[in-house]
Amino acid sequence: MGITELFNQKLRVINLGVPLFAADLAQQGHAVTELDWNPPGGGDPRLLAALEKLEKVKDKVDAANRQVFLAITIAQPFLEGIARAGDVIPGMGERTLLHAGPPVAWKDMCGPMRGAVLGAIIYEGWAGNPAEAEKLAGSGEIAYSPCHEHDSVGPMAGVVSTSMPVFIIYNRVHGNYAYCTINEGLGRVLRYGAYRQEVLERLKWIEGELAPALQQALALSGGIDLRGLIAQALHMGDEGHNRNKAGTSLLFRLLAPYLARTELERDVIGRCLAFINSNDHFFLNLSMPAAKACLDAAGDVPYSTMVTVMSRNGSEFGIRVSGTGKRWFTAPANQVNGLYFPGYSAKDANPDIGDSAITETAGIGGFAMAAAPAIVQFVGGSAPDALEYSKLMYNITYGENSAYTIPALDFRGSPTGIDVRKVIELGILPNINTGIAHKDPGIGQVGAGLVKPPRQCFEAALLALAGTVDILD
Amino acid sequence: MGITELFNQKLRVINLGVPLFAADLAQQGHAVTELDWNPPGGGDPRLLAALEKLEKVKDKVDAANRQVFLAITIAQPFLEGIARAGDVIPGMGERTLLHAGPPVAWKDMCGPMRGAVLGAIIYEGWAGNPAEAEKLAGSGEIAYSPCHEHDSVGPMAGVVSTSMPVFIIYNRVHGNYAYCTINEGLGRVLRYGAYRQEVLERLKWIEGELAPALQQALALSGGIDLRGLIAQALHMGDEGHNRNKAGTSLLFRLLAPYLARTELERDVIGRCLAFINSNDHFFLNLSMPAAKACLDAAGDVPYSTMVTVMSRNGSEFGIRVSGTGKRWFTAPANQVNGLYFPGYSAKDANPDIGDSAITETAGIGGFAMAAAPAIVQFVGGSAPDALEYSKLMYNITYGENSAYTIPALDFRGSPTGIDVRKVIELGILPNINTGIAHKDPGIGQVGAGLVKPPRQCFEAALLALAGTVDILD
Repeated sequence: MGITELFNQKLRVINLGVPLFAADLAQQGHAVTELDWNPPGGGDPRLLAALEKLEKVKDKVDAANRQVFLAITIAQPFLEGIARAGDVIPGMGERTLLHAGPPVAWKDMCGPMRGAVLGAIIYEGWAGNPAEAEKLAGSGEIAYSPCHEHDSVGPMAGVVSTSMPVFIIYNRVHGNYAYCTINEGLGRVLRYGAYRQEVLERLKWIEGELAPALQQALALSGGIDLRGLIAQALHMGDEGHNRNKAGTSLLFRLLAPYLARTELERDVIGRCLAFINSNDHFFLNLSMPAAKACLDAAGDVPYSTMVTVMSRNGSEFGIRVSGTGKRWFTAPANQVNGLYFPGYSAKDANPDIGDSAITETAGIGGFAMAAAPAIVQFVGGSAPDALEYSKLMYNITYGENSAYTIPALDFRGSPTGIDVRKVIELGILPNINTGIAHKDPGIGQVGAGLVKPPRQCFEAALLALAGTVDILD
Repeated sequence: MGITELFNQKLRVINLGVPLFAADLAQQGHAVTELDWNPPGGGDPRLLAALEKLEKVKDKVDAANRQVFLAITIAQPFLEGIARAGDVIPGMGERTLLHAGPPVAWKDMCGPMRGAVLGAIIYEGWAGNPAEAEKLAGSGEIAYSPCHEHDSVGPMAGVVSTSMPVFIIYNRVHGNYAYCTINEGLGRVLRYGAYRQEVLERLKWIEGELAPALQQALALSGGIDLRGLIAQALHMGDEGHNRNKAGTSLLFRLLAPYLARTELERDVIGRCLAFINSNDHFFLNLSMPAAKACLDAAGDVPYSTMVTVMSRNGSEFGIRVSGTGKRWFTAPANQVNGLYFPGYSAKDANPDIGDSAITETAGIGGFAMAAAPAIVQFVGGSAPDALEYSKLMYNITYGENSAYTIPALDFRGSPTGIDVRKVIELGILPNINTGIAHKDPGIGQVGAGLVKPPRQCFEAALLALAGTVDILD
């Protein structure tokens, strides 16, 4: 067909890129379809140069990413026991508090994290009341450090102090450990920045009664295969981040017979079982360190463009990438788009917070939302949206998880292993399901929803990765 | 467009009804689409006349069906306790054996039902070995009666004898009871016709240890809301018939803390919990009588064309319809189309058997398959098929269940209340998920799959319903 012939026909135009052309044609009465497309890296020459540099060593990058993907997906995280944080978490001094997200100083901490810090200080007996605790918190006597820098993860504020009991997760394939506190339940809890007497009393009960009881049950169990539990839970409507009802139920079924066989008083067993049964999020504090144990086995692989950590301290969002090891790439955290509990609204919300995005980093959570259509009642949207969120994530991930399959996608493996190159090339950001904390300390959870990381984290990581090529090659 | 103009064009034909026309046109080189359509009632003049007769009293039929639908969907079945079958099931003499499906004499029973009868006779001590039991079974001294005629349901062979413990389900809205034995677990079990020593020993353990223990726990619970559990399980990948993993887990979570608080020895508690935990079908024997309790509240409503029972004795399929009360409409049972366990094939299979189709009758099971995409690994087909099965059932049901919603269908209520008129008009038969028993006694389960009832049951029911109009009007 000649060009003259073409323009003598009625034009039907697909426009991509600059919207101005589409607008002009539409004004002249032509049918125009605007394609949702952006140039790679938003057309930023620095990002394009970085992508090009990585493209030149594509074989090395692909091999490194394959190694990382395999490490993540063949890892076998087992729940092996429970111990005092200070006794097992590496590099944790007696006056250290771990927290969620990238590094942050006391003065820069958001409200809920400050609340959790005050609570932890009183819980440890380092101060007798909130006023004293606040003074101590900023005195320089307390060391603050990210959970992620100590083989650990913590939901929301993620504050861990030395006396707190933590789950011990052991990756039986790669031999590394991960740690996480025991989930406190719903309502006013430390992880959402609440620190009243009832919150601290519950933590003391967890330390004094629940943790020792569970430790006895776990000793009888010989270890619990968390990968197996998560795989089953994804067939039962969980996604492993904001919906953990099935995981909690399956864990409960495994623990209860062992608990019953311990030498514990029956009142103790009854209280422990009732506590776990009362909280469908109990399993979150196991799906998170399970993901951490898989991802830590995949850190520090030169040339790899795969994300190994996504995490938020309530002020900043931070990521780490395998090829740049322990370096953080941070940017201000976004607000969560979600549903609020009665009496609360977006103006009460703290920005995105917590280490729980480790689940998405490992291919579950928001990435496996298609497995959990019922979650939209909690985070918003419709059931078909849940399918679409998962499908979109296949575009920015290395591959399909052999351990975790999604029935509604006809048992396709969950999209796993975020590739920074793909995020920048396609302009598609990871999808994260999350809870929403009140911005003021001492209040707690006010809702749940969906959030995206800031693009800048991925841009900075890409530039740094390109920088490593100069050194390595 | 004139008729001449039409036939001067290239024809694209949609043929509906007699396929001969389509074949002729196709032979002449025209594009023909054959529509999957049949005339109402397959064009049978007797069925058309019956439909017409019911159409004349449409207002009365619709009002009756509305009453039935409401009864089914507002019923509140609670698990209230456990008792000896002979002590609670109405009309059960000491030498009565209840069985699944419509009435059947010993000589006409299929292999697995005969096996279960022999097992029950030995279990009761009425005979010492299979040979003696077989002699007694056909002697006339044993009375056989369908579970459904005694407010009861039984999976597969469904054999209930007087000493067996049964769950007591009470419908708190309508005040009626339903009963079912305790699920024995997987492998060689009485309900699949196995009757070896190990099978009978397990039944004796259930009678002597498990049932009394659970009764103590249930007494502490104050009753368990089965409708609530089923509603949650449908959001967790169960459909309540062939997938009961979530229901079993949720029930376990409720029972365990109560069990721990009883005065039972801890070994007993441990064994009971381990037994329930070992069997993801444990909840089936509660989803079934829960459905029965709802449907029995909807029986005997004059003019109603709604199905209140679908059930099979392994030889015949039987249905009951509200407007014709306790009358059975039977026809030979179909073979199940499914997946077989290693070493077995279709030639080993008994025809469709069990009272478990009561779940589909109440709007769950095969009707709620869209809630349970993972089930296709057990019964065959693909995840999209599971969605389509549920969607198809909306065509033959009265309405959407307000208690039971399906996340993957964006929380649409499950299709509930089969209308015999719609089944005949549209030629769409109910979809049933089911297990497959070996055809010989003493072996057990060999697979699972999908099955349809014979059309004749619905045809006979429709004719009988039309007959009641003559009497009533």
